[in-house]
Amino acid sequence: MAAGGPPVLVVTRLDDATADQVITELNRRRVPVVRLDPGDFPREVVLSGTFDSTGTSGTLATASRRIDLGNVRSVYWRRPTPHTADLAMDEQTGRWAVEEARYGLGGILTALPGAYYLNHPWRNRDAEYKPAQLATAAACGFTVPPTLITNDPDRARAFAAEHGPVLYKPLRETEYTDGTGRPLTVWIEDVTPDQIDSRVIHTAHLFQQRVGKSADIRLTAVGDHLTAVRIDRSPGVDWRRHYDVLAYTPVPVPPVVATGVRAYLGAFRLTFGAFDFGLDRDGVWHWYECNPNGQWAWFPDRITIPLTHAIADRLQHGAPV
Amino acid sequence: MAAGGPPVLVVTRLDDATADQVITELNRRRVPVVRLDPGDFPREVVLSGTFDSTGTSGTLATASRRIDLGNVRSVYWRRPTPHTADLAMDEQTGRWAVEEARYGLGGILTALPGAYYLNHPWRNRDAEYKPAQLATAAACGFTVPPTLITNDPDRARAFAAEHGPVLYKPLRETEYTDGTGRPLTVWIEDVTPDQIDSRVIHTAHLFQQRVGKSADIRLTAVGDHLTAVRIDRSPGVDWRRHYDVLAYTPVPVPPVVATGVRAYLGAFRLTFGAFDFGLDRDGVWHWYECNPNGQWAWFPDRITIPLTHAIADRLQHGAPV
Repeated sequence: MAAGGPPVLVVTRLDDATADQVITELNRRRVPVVRLDPGDFPREVVLSGTFDSTGTSGTLATASRRIDLGNVRSVYWRRPTPHTADLAMDEQTGRWAVEEARYGLGGILTALPGAYYLNHPWRNRDAEYKPAQLATAAACGFTVPPTLITNDPDRARAFAAEHGPVLYKPLRETEYTDGTGRPLTVWIEDVTPDQIDSRVIHTAHLFQQRVGKSADIRLTAVGDHLTAVRIDRSPGVDWRRHYDVLAYTPVPVPPVVATGVRAYLGAFRLTFGAFDFGLDRDGVWHWYECNPNGQWAWFPDRITIPLTHAIADRLQHGAPV
Repeated sequence: MAAGGPPVLVVTRLDDATADQVITELNRRRVPVVRLDPGDFPREVVLSGTFDSTGTSGTLATASRRIDLGNVRSVYWRRPTPHTADLAMDEQTGRWAVEEARYGLGGILTALPGAYYLNHPWRNRDAEYKPAQLATAAACGFTVPPTLITNDPDRARAFAAEHGPVLYKPLRETEYTDGTGRPLTVWIEDVTPDQIDSRVIHTAHLFQQRVGKSADIRLTAVGDHLTAVRIDRSPGVDWRRHYDVLAYTPVPVPPVVATGVRAYLGAFRLTFGAFDFGLDRDGVWHWYECNPNGQWAWFPDRITIPLTHAIADRLQHGAPV
């Protein structure tokens, strides 16, 4: 194994079981790793980034480590905490300081010269918009359930009547996880036409035809390394509420799905994606969503170990040529 | 002139002198135009966007117009107002409603099938990060003044002593303009080592060597249509404080600058960019910044009319092949 060389920069919060697994593997390979939470800036991080016609240089120093900004091997962008203002500041100054931190340190971290990103944070941010996910999934040839985004109660009721049973899904994923890296979120719920009332006018709502599914599938992509797991025994529509009773079975990826995944990752310029599908009784994979920064560390070891290796391979060596 | 056909969607606030000029030209050409401020959603805009395996359809209706989401010619992304919560909502519900609106309507507006974007809002957002601008400008061959981004007062003082005279520049541009479309912002100021004190620790600060310039240059790029204007008579370092006394002279673009601009726009996937340079006494163009959504309507008519036509050409016909 190669030892030493430029470090992998892992951008995340203290509590991130998923990042921990990858860091352990990189340590085993003796690849240098620096862990950074941008939310610790400016209190516990000293930044000195310099730019001129020759490019970027300078350093970023935490309590224990010092990073040469011109010599970062790769960046594993996970779940940093947001910048917060010094409590001693008045509100307006605090807002200004947070914005300067976000555009200053945040900007530097997005443009490290020659670094490989898994994923680049701008690409994650783009790929989090569900309407863009749905439009891109259709363009990539996936089977997309009829979906409506609206603030019109009449349209919502008509859609539920025509395409029911339908589900309500939040448009925005939350970032919360439990201690083991399992995602917590606003749940997906069944909704009937009579439950749709005038409150729909207050913002955008997403309604989607419920797939007549026999199981769920989570496909985790690390470039062309695809890991599809069939998830059975979920007693409700949203398996994320029921981790402890789920059964996981690795399944092969149909070529049409693999082709779609490749096109989708290319469209958003992602390396990593956590794709959710519903599997119907005819074996068709129905598109639900792709979380560009999804969790995977809660799977059993037989699934997470190869995933950890695939991610560590990319962070150590960059994209395969 | 072609009349009718799919509309151009102009995404901006009510008060936007720059958009007004482009809309007037599109009207003259009889190209249909719909103006939309997403900040009016959900109160004055009804959204009904549908998705399935065949792609995106549905409508967006304002008080006066109705847009077919599957049939938008192009999008001129200017200066929309942010979404705001209904005052009747409690704070947490309001925040949730704003996020759902932003990810719902905002997401749909970023993924209109087949529409040409000038610029795509995600590309604007990426290109607003000054550290990424500086790193990209260097990679594109521009002459970049020595620049430091830091929260370390000692480093800042040492930089000012070594590279002085230096300027302090904000990392984040504000969006404010006066009634005629001229940008208002936090001003760029000269700074001396003795002015740099321990307050620097509170966030990221940008210090840049002051170019020994003889004039400023604003280069407005609409794809390969480059308009460079020499700006003279600014009594201070930041010409945006002194519009009324400035003299504007169109100047040719050196081939090395044109090549750099093309590479820079390509790197950020922009069509439009407002580039600022300092011109030194030897005729060298020194990089300052590129605002991907910069203002230009305050220039004299002899400059704005060809610019308006170049933008209208793109919105009417898409990118030249």
